[in-house]
Amino acid sequence: MALIVQKFGGTSVGTVERIEAVAEKIVQFRDQGDDIVVVVSAMSGETNRLVALAQEIMDYPTPREMDVLLSTGEQVTIALLSMALEKRGYGARSFTGGQVRILTSDIHTKARIREIDGTRIHAQLDQGNVVVVAGFQGVDDHGNITTLGRGGSDTTAVALAAALEADECQIYTDVKGVYTTDPRVVEDARLLSSITFEEMLELASLGAKVLQIRAVEFAGKYKVPLRVLSSFEEGPGTLISLEGDEKMEDPTIAGIAFERDEAKLTVAGVPDVPGVAYQVIGPVSAAGIEVDVIVQNAAEDGTNDITFTVKRSESDRAKQILDGIQASIGAREVLLDKKVGKVSVVGVGMRSHAGVASKTFKALADESINIQIITTSEIKISVVIEEKYLELAVRALHSAFELGDPDYEKDGGQ
Amino acid sequence: MALIVQKFGGTSVGTVERIEAVAEKIVQFRDQGDDIVVVVSAMSGETNRLVALAQEIMDYPTPREMDVLLSTGEQVTIALLSMALEKRGYGARSFTGGQVRILTSDIHTKARIREIDGTRIHAQLDQGNVVVVAGFQGVDDHGNITTLGRGGSDTTAVALAAALEADECQIYTDVKGVYTTDPRVVEDARLLSSITFEEMLELASLGAKVLQIRAVEFAGKYKVPLRVLSSFEEGPGTLISLEGDEKMEDPTIAGIAFERDEAKLTVAGVPDVPGVAYQVIGPVSAAGIEVDVIVQNAAEDGTNDITFTVKRSESDRAKQILDGIQASIGAREVLLDKKVGKVSVVGVGMRSHAGVASKTFKALADESINIQIITTSEIKISVVIEEKYLELAVRALHSAFELGDPDYEKDGGQ
Repeated sequence: MALIVQKFGGTSVGTVERIEAVAEKIVQFRDQGDDIVVVVSAMSGETNRLVALAQEIMDYPTPREMDVLLSTGEQVTIALLSMALEKRGYGARSFTGGQVRILTSDIHTKARIREIDGTRIHAQLDQGNVVVVAGFQGVDDHGNITTLGRGGSDTTAVALAAALEADECQIYTDVKGVYTTDPRVVEDARLLSSITFEEMLELASLGAKVLQIRAVEFAGKYKVPLRVLSSFEEGPGTLISLEGDEKMEDPTIAGIAFERDEAKLTVAGVPDVPGVAYQVIGPVSAAGIEVDVIVQNAAEDGTNDITFTVKRSESDRAKQILDGIQASIGAREVLLDKKVGKVSVVGVGMRSHAGVASKTFKALADESINIQIITTSEIKISVVIEEKYLELAVRALHSAFELGDPDYEKDGGQ
Repeated sequence: MALIVQKFGGTSVGTVERIEAVAEKIVQFRDQGDDIVVVVSAMSGETNRLVALAQEIMDYPTPREMDVLLSTGEQVTIALLSMALEKRGYGARSFTGGQVRILTSDIHTKARIREIDGTRIHAQLDQGNVVVVAGFQGVDDHGNITTLGRGGSDTTAVALAAALEADECQIYTDVKGVYTTDPRVVEDARLLSSITFEEMLELASLGAKVLQIRAVEFAGKYKVPLRVLSSFEEGPGTLISLEGDEKMEDPTIAGIAFERDEAKLTVAGVPDVPGVAYQVIGPVSAAGIEVDVIVQNAAEDGTNDITFTVKRSESDRAKQILDGIQASIGAREVLLDKKVGKVSVVGVGMRSHAGVASKTFKALADESINIQIITTSEIKISVVIEEKYLELAVRALHSAFELGDPDYEKDGGQ
């Protein structure tokens, strides 16, 4: 008998029919004797409906009132799911974030969870009830309703699992788990049975957006075993765990992540003096533009080239900013290349295995793909390349590291 | 500067446009320097939408979860109205029933208010904010969400006015106030500028359903001055107050109430022994059928006729019950007349003014309307008559007691 926290997102509870299906799934676990705490999002479409109502009134609705408004979305779902469980003869009790004292900071629309008091939930579990908690929401010290911002329900689930010392936190989603790369790009991409938190962080931030990065960080920090699995299909999904835990596969490389729609900016010929990188990047960040990889290389003439990437949609704005400061920082020129993409090889194994970098470069060279930028971290090698080679590069690397599903031929890609 | 509690029902906040109009109205009072606490219902249609969702799952949804579900309706409105006020530059703070500690009994879907802690509201008013409270809802001792049942938002408003010692509780509705009778039946029905609580209770329960009877009782008990007025038109409405307070009109009669769709049941020839009335009425009430007027008259042969009225829609069921017990109570026969209506003359003045009864009977006799049943209370005379004479009776009595609007000819019925 285990204590499991299960989270179902908006698509999984998008209709009454789907809420009934979720109830069926929960009931299976109850029948095995598990204690279940369920976290749910608003029914898909509901949040948009509420936002539209608010925006009929104001373009930028009062954040405090926005939280009062949006938090009703999950409240509807908890009530309906509890009814669906009661209908099946299983005791269920719904709770809003405030009712189970999910205490947060007071930054409306993007509050952070500070503390959860598990007393009330444990009391309900002891009485044999399924506890159904509204995700995405909490209360501040003064009892004002707060919401956690994008992906907040994942965070609620992980935080609850940590506070309750749950045996596992299961995030149900519309994919079967985490794959070695995007199956739409590489046909034989393999479902990973497990992955480490660090690998998941790199994969999530690099484009495999199965789970919100904040929830993964939280789970890693509090050592909550996290499992990603499908609401709609059977299967064990992917366990995200501490390094070495139940790590069944080849430990070297977990997967190949990639990011389309990047743009590369180069500020060439800046003086090689302290503070120049800050002078270049500072104004771009200050404009709210997210900067991804940054590299700097000293040239032999005592100047530097500083190169970084941004989202393509923000690249023109970044270029304008740099053009504006070019003279004052004494740069020779500002170059923009709007057609680049990024591919990353991710795996904790590369810490202890030499040769991952050279194998990466060889695989790309074999396909005559030119590497424009290389950056590395302890568990990741990223390269920026011409965008038209992106899919080719992903497939080449996936194959070079032998990540393909050995059963692929057999079952036709399923 | 006064403290005013204002309540706006579902129709008054049915669209974003109407919520904006409500905000405009509130702003006018703020500009006069009044402190305002607003109580709102769910947007019209929203409660039905939520009920339909629940009933897709269960025919009789779990009451606790029904309250969690339905309470979101008002929560949406408080957020939107607060935004509309903020947009106009007026500070506003929304609160759910739980947040302002509207403590209720734990009978889900029909809880009763026990206590309200006004501290938080007073603190907000002191800061110059309009306080917007979700009607219809509260929390029980364990923090579970409760709802008050039909008309609950009126009750919330009155209870808040009592707890905060407000100067006035204003109930905004889709009529201009309380009339001497239904203007659809009597063209020159007059808007009353004031009425007593007792008169209002009699008029409300008899068909002039402007205000929920529970809210009127509550207001009377806690001596909260209550005003009914229109959300959509200007005008002072009708003040419901303690007897004598600002009572401007002729004190004798306040109005003529009436009830259509009644049915009359007579259990004839029952033995004149103690307990027989209970034997007749008991089983009918036990079946959940609401009994209205009851009269009993001893005949000369030592038997009794017991006559009472019920809603027409429930009369067949009542007849069946009586047929079933006829033999055991020794009644001669059970008669059902499905075509009756009730007309009532209401006014605190009749306590001290003789002749109201005889004037009533004469007015009906002049129109050759036969009276089937007469019942009286301290401030009311009710007669049951053949239904086809109902409108005629109402007009005759309205005219006999000179209740018509003296300005009617002038302004064409406005």
